[in-house]
Amino acid sequence: MKNITAICPGSFDPVTVGHLDIISRASKMFGNVIVVVMTNTTKSPCFTVEERIEMLRKTTAGIENVSVDSYYGLLADYAKKRNAGAIIKGLRAMSDFEYEFQMALTNKKLNPDVETVFLTTSVQNMYLSSSMVKQIGSMNGDIRDFVPDVIQDEIIKRLQERAR
Amino acid sequence: MKNITAICPGSFDPVTVGHLDIISRASKMFGNVIVVVMTNTTKSPCFTVEERIEMLRKTTAGIENVSVDSYYGLLADYAKKRNAGAIIKGLRAMSDFEYEFQMALTNKKLNPDVETVFLTTSVQNMYLSSSMVKQIGSMNGDIRDFVPDVIQDEIIKRLQERAR
Amino acid sequence: MKNITAICPGSFDPVTVGHLDIISRASKMFGNVIVVVMTNTTKSPCFTVEERIEMLRKTTAGIENVSVDSYYGLLADYAKKRNAGAIIKGLRAMSDFEYEFQMALTNKKLNPDVETVFLTTSVQNMYLSSSMVKQIGSMNGDIRDFVPDVIQDEIIKRLQERAR
Amino acid sequence: MKNITAICPGSFDPVTVGHLDIISRASKMFGNVIVVVMTNTTKSPCFTVEERIEMLRKTTAGIENVSVDSYYGLLADYAKKRNAGAIIKGLRAMSDFEYEFQMALTNKKLNPDVETVFLTTSVQNMYLSSSMVKQIGSMNGDIRDFVPDVIQDEIIKRLQERAR
Amino acid sequence: MKNITAICPGSFDPVTVGHLDIISRASKMFGNVIVVVMTNTTKSPCFTVEERIEMLRKTTAGIENVSVDSYYGLLADYAKKRNAGAIIKGLRAMSDFEYEFQMALTNKKLNPDVETVFLTTSVQNMYLSSSMVKQIGSMNGDIRDFVPDVIQDEIIKRLQERAR
Amino acid sequence: MKNITAICPGSFDPVTVGHLDIISRASKMFGNVIVVVMTNTTKSPCFTVEERIEMLRKTTAGIENVSVDSYYGLLADYAKKRNAGAIIKGLRAMSDFEYEFQMALTNKKLNPDVETVFLTTSVQNMYLSSSMVKQIGSMNGDIRDFVPDVIQDEIIKRLQERAR
Repeated sequence: MKNITAICPGSFDPVTVGHLDIISRASKMFGNVIVVVMTNTTKSPCFTVEERIEMLRKTTAGIENVSVDSYYGLLADYAKKRNAGAIIKGLRAMSDFEYEFQMALTNKKLNPDVETVFLTTSVQNMYLSSSMVKQIGSMNGDIRDFVPDVIQDEIIKRLQERAR
Repeated sequence: MKNITAICPGSFDPVTVGHLDIISRASKMFGNVIVVVMTNTTKSPCFTVEERIEMLRKTTAGIENVSVDSYYGLLADYAKKRNAGAIIKGLRAMSDFEYEFQMALTNKKLNPDVETVFLTTSVQNMYLSSSMVKQIGSMNGDIRDFVPDVIQDEIIKRLQERAR
Repeated sequence: MKNITAICPGSFDPVTVGHLDIISRASKMFGNVIVVVMTNTTKSPCFTVEERIEMLRKTTAGIENVSVDSYYGLLADYAKKRNAGAIIKGLRAMSDFEYEFQMALTNKKLNPDVETVFLTTSVQNMYLSSSMVKQIGSMNGDIRDFVPDVIQDEIIKRLQERAR
Repeated sequence: MKNITAICPGSFDPVTVGHLDIISRASKMFGNVIVVVMTNTTKSPCFTVEERIEMLRKTTAGIENVSVDSYYGLLADYAKKRNAGAIIKGLRAMSDFEYEFQMALTNKKLNPDVETVFLTTSVQNMYLSSSMVKQIGSMNGDIRDFVPDVIQDEIIKRLQERAR
Repeated sequence: MKNITAICPGSFDPVTVGHLDIISRASKMFGNVIVVVMTNTTKSPCFTVEERIEMLRKTTAGIENVSVDSYYGLLADYAKKRNAGAIIKGLRAMSDFEYEFQMALTNKKLNPDVETVFLTTSVQNMYLSSSMVKQIGSMNGDIRDFVPDVIQDEIIKRLQERAR
Repeated sequence: MKNITAICPGSFDPVTVGHLDIISRASKMFGNVIVVVMTNTTKSPCFTVEERIEMLRKTTAGIENVSVDSYYGLLADYAKKRNAGAIIKGLRAMSDFEYEFQMALTNKKLNPDVETVFLTTSVQNMYLSSSMVKQIGSMNGDIRDFVPDVIQDEIIKRLQERAR
């Protein structure tokens, strides 16, 4: 029996069905899952930190062992603070892999107690990313299959406002 | 609290310090870890299945929640049989990743209840593989840093016999 | 208006739903599509050339502008012989790409009149290959989603015979 | 016989001999080829949309079935509007491939009637890109082998102006 | 006997132990090694050109055949000016490789007399880059293992100032 | 001034114009270049070790500081024996890179005194390999652009004999 805390870090600007799939699968393997909005990585986000936290809360409401947080600082430090044993990352493709591999080795160096754990995205989400959602949505493309149902209208409205 | 069974599959022909590192790190995250020698993948192995099981037992003897097994058949079926929630794979490099990614998607298709979980190898093991160990050992190269201490002499002796 | 002949070369040992998807999409873009079983590439095939041709005929029977052939020799020469303007290749992943890229440049050098044209496989076929089908089928795994319906029983029977 | 419309999208800021090679090869396979300057992708282009269209017209003047257009919006929507059956992309290298693969899957999702078709660049253009042309030209490097003859002087002049 | 001049170009913003390792290894193979700060590549550097030159001088002071310089312009032109026979590049990973490969082919085209020579980074530096150093340092992470001892305090101080 | 011995290892089964290009470029940078036929890597070679040495001698006859040798054993040991400072490898593509990177790190571990130095192949040789030459030649394809002039007839004759 293990009670490992796993962290799902990201910008979640906005959260996609791909993110949600990874979070949900992580929640089946680990005792606690903390989804954390890292606030220092995205330069000019589309959604505020508060909005992103709120969207994550709505979409993960049905999963008991998942909580949502935000952090400004190094992921390795956040993992230490929360006493986490695993950082969860979804891999879509090679280019993801290369960068994530470097980050994993760096985080291991900065905090030897935390493992980066990679899951493969489901095939139907393989081409999905927050930036594609934003790009397609801002051109009035149909993004309904890409973002969770409960926050769809909110996202579509925001992206169309920004496009003007 | 979760009591997930994780499987570390491989040929382990022979087990390297890289394998051992992955097994040991997996044992910290999951309730039970089963190291399983897949017997249908390697064509003309250097060590028999029994020898490989024995070497794995010796090298994992100090880790409480690790057991060793062998299987002839599909990994997805073995995972089902053992009621496993995770398959653990160490990634060294891109070429690993590509193949492992395909295998992970296939296994997910054959057995939706098991996740493939990727860990990065430690940097000092990045260039390490069983086949390199065999190649170097058979040419009288020094493999002592590449294989666990307790089985070193056994491996060196065998590789030198084969080289004749 | 163009009347380009496109070639879909492969071992097709056996044909998968992934191959069929590429052939069908090629048939919508080009005047004639010739599916050609290259007989010098696979060392010990599971199915004879005649069986593979027959399976391809059955599965492409509904597509008007597709014909099936076999060839022993260089693809660049076959393209010349059939006066083809395009060679069609499905790309699943990076490792495919690297090899196919080299082959495309070589074929261009040997026959400057033929273009290699790459299509992406559909996401649900991304992990699918003839060798995976053979591996899974020979271990009694379920391959029904991987091969066309009309030839399913034939393939399953053969793979199980071979596994004995 | 097929009368497929193929689209060659890009920023073309500026058009290179690599682009021209792809356009010309596409024109041999497809009934109509539309070269389209996508106006929403490049942030601060070196040449205006009108200049880029004009340069494309000059360099493709000798190819009968090629026309030039521009579009602000999603490529998938443009393909629908022009009733196109193929999107043509030249692949130089792996990093191209990864991104283009994702785009191809996204466009297939947004518009199932259009295929993305990849051609390999000719070896002599393998290292060529608009951004390299701009970088080299702005440092007074020799770009004459990289851009079509008829627009060479225009491009060199502009890049040198910008460098000041 | 050869007296080849080798160039180690970069932004060095700031120099890391990874850079120093490559410079030192190059100095064992080539007669003269010039470390050159290319001043046109980094948009808003953290350290001025003068500071970067000074840091490079301090850290390479113990290596006899190494000198430090800066240049605004094309690397191929600088190589010509210094009559260099080799450009030295450290490769950490695939993504490095792809870009560097393109640059090498471009430089060969612009200046056929200079070879680009790639060395592999040492395993312990595999995840190390100037931008990671800046990112970690600006978040108060420990960067002491990543930058040469003699300039450590200077770098830490600057990164913390910038973070405010 | 440096008098570094560089090793160009390979199977050279047979030597191609791509190999020759790398050897020739290495000879401009290093004092002595030893081309060494590694005799333990290729399982069933097309040419005997003696034939391969002879072909290498003929094709490198015009380059003063190049000699030819053969070795059965570990490259790291051979480098030690010849007191070499560099191992030269030509990189054609990513898949090369991945494997060569691992080999380079392994050789560094086994013999810290030797550096692996990578050169990019010239663009026109990018798709060229000994195995492609053998495959094309055995199918009566035209290999004259792929192998050095002085050994062309010999190679063509042998490949056609083997094909029967």
